[in-house]
Amino acid sequence: MTHEIAVIPGDGIGQEVTPAAVEVLEAIETVDFEFVEGDAGDAVKAETGTALPEATAALAADADATLFGAAGETAADVILPLRQVVGSFANVRPAVAYPALDAVQPDTDLVFIRENTEGVYKGIESEITDGVTTCTRVITEEASEKIAEFGFDYARQNGFDDVTIAHKANVMQKTDGLFLETAERVGADLDAEYDTALMDALAMHLVMHPEDYGVVVCPNLAGDMLSDLAAGLVGGLGLLPSANVGEENALFEPVHGSAPDIAGEGIANPSAMVLSAAMLLDHLGYDEEGDRVREAVETVLDEGPRTPDLGGDGSTEEVTAAILDAL
Amino acid sequence: MTHEIAVIPGDGIGQEVTPAAVEVLEAIETVDFEFVEGDAGDAVKAETGTALPEATAALAADADATLFGAAGETAADVILPLRQVVGSFANVRPAVAYPALDAVQPDTDLVFIRENTEGVYKGIESEITDGVTTCTRVITEEASEKIAEFGFDYARQNGFDDVTIAHKANVMQKTDGLFLETAERVGADLDAEYDTALMDALAMHLVMHPEDYGVVVCPNLAGDMLSDLAAGLVGGLGLLPSANVGEENALFEPVHGSAPDIAGEGIANPSAMVLSAAMLLDHLGYDEEGDRVREAVETVLDEGPRTPDLGGDGSTEEVTAAILDAL
Ligand SMILES: CC(C)[C@H](C(=O)O)[C@@H](O)C(=O)O
Ligand SMILES: CC(C)[C@H](C(=O)O)[C@@H](O)C(=O)O
Repeated sequence: MTHEIAVIPGDGIGQEVTPAAVEVLEAIETVDFEFVEGDAGDAVKAETGTALPEATAALAADADATLFGAAGETAADVILPLRQVVGSFANVRPAVAYPALDAVQPDTDLVFIRENTEGVYKGIESEITDGVTTCTRVITEEASEKIAEFGFDYARQNGFDDVTIAHKANVMQKTDGLFLETAERVGADLDAEYDTALMDALAMHLVMHPEDYGVVVCPNLAGDMLSDLAAGLVGGLGLLPSANVGEENALFEPVHGSAPDIAGEGIANPSAMVLSAAMLLDHLGYDEEGDRVREAVETVLDEGPRTPDLGGDGSTEEVTAAILDAL
Repeated sequence: MTHEIAVIPGDGIGQEVTPAAVEVLEAIETVDFEFVEGDAGDAVKAETGTALPEATAALAADADATLFGAAGETAADVILPLRQVVGSFANVRPAVAYPALDAVQPDTDLVFIRENTEGVYKGIESEITDGVTTCTRVITEEASEKIAEFGFDYARQNGFDDVTIAHKANVMQKTDGLFLETAERVGADLDAEYDTALMDALAMHLVMHPEDYGVVVCPNLAGDMLSDLAAGLVGGLGLLPSANVGEENALFEPVHGSAPDIAGEGIANPSAMVLSAAMLLDHLGYDEEGDRVREAVETVLDEGPRTPDLGGDGSTEEVTAAILDAL
């Protein structure tokens, strides 16, 4: 069985790290892939007037999964519709502190399960009158139930014995109230262990004691912030992969952006992108292969070469070659 | 001139730390205070059915300033209306890492200027139909201008040479777009230095490099989360004071809550409450007196006694006595 993978490198270092992930996937002999490439991002917008051409969206829609690199200024216009196109309802964001690296909190081993379809991301905004604007945040029982079920499931399958439900139901009593109540009901129905936490208090506790947490299920925007906070705890976005998971399709992307400051120099760290490819392998059912890729990345993190963001002077190509060697 | 101060101890350790702040203010010979006490919180709700009696709200409305301790389960029902009653549009939250303490990031010296009237805190929520809820977030040019002016002013008066405007305008293009555009215009009109930062990226950078930031101007909910994140960086809420500033009135409160786990034991740390009283002194124009109180608190943090939250075995009373001695 051949898996068709849409590959959308996007802007900046997306162009440099995406090929690394493709090379790694190609090196996995036990799985057959066919790669189809599409354009998106600032450069395409400058040329064609649209950041996400319909043909690219169609590629992602039709593929078995998508690898996405990064977008620059147009990030929101590219990644938000792409998440919709693949029908993604769950954004999975692990934040793990690798021993070889200088983390603010070396004991961090977290996975954020971020609701990926609603909240303020519904895009319902109005200018009511001059100088008065509104944004309508939407929370439904259906989406809350789905993300909670996914989160509890993820925790069980990945050996986490605790789930935290993040919310701000003391202020957003109806919307986050519904999110919280629904997620708690799912947890109770599954007879699962869980905690609940006000997201502001959680931000503080995560900074001080990340080791107290495992899987964190969050509304959309809370997940956006909390997962970036956790990226800070492990030493930055450089190593963080993510998965946008749908019922029948999925998109995998590093959490980092297009890094215009170093784009084109051939020194971007491909690890987050390669780790995103490992999540793609897991997602397609190749857990062992996913583990192999993760172990190869970890070996290279330990032994080098390293790119400049990690204090080394290796190139993207050298690090990629080392990962392929370690596979 | 006598300043009338409403004192609302509230629940839990609020009952223990608020008297400490009153004692400290009474010890300042250069300023005359008259204190009037009001009830609010869980205990009052259990007795009377309402967490914030009208008489208490009226006390705060009529006083020159209010000292608020903490509320428990009913926190939102007490502190949100109290902030309105005193007409507060700016929530000022310094997060300073004291040398004597074990901070995650010892170089943290931040002040969050949080918009205090709108965003999701407008409380406009609906259940549209079964299982579908909305929360309407409001951002106005007027409130955005006011908080930005306050923030730039605060930075200038307190020797910060940089202001960061936090936003999520890539997703909330109209609402945070208006906030951002307005705050940038205020900065430009004042010829002030400023940066802008997406609040998710800011969460990451604050965790890794808080020393790169000074004053951070934020929409309401972003300020709620980011200031708690910063509390984590300096070692927790225990030492953080805050001010809710209005045109002609203001309310001062520690950032910590009612701490039911240690309430009634006489071991609560009064520092955050006393530092809130120092902000009250600043606010009334007694900057030197405010500094004296802050220095006294710092002396005691250095030399002890300390309460158990800071690894000591001192009582609230002992710490308060030491602060009074150091004044
Ligand atoms: C680029 C932006 C629209 C996006 C988001 O807010 O989801 C980004 O911050 C992320 O977390 O992937
Ligand atoms: C208690 C709650 C309503 C409040 C808020 O959200 O403002 C608290 O978190 C705070 O930051 O003072």
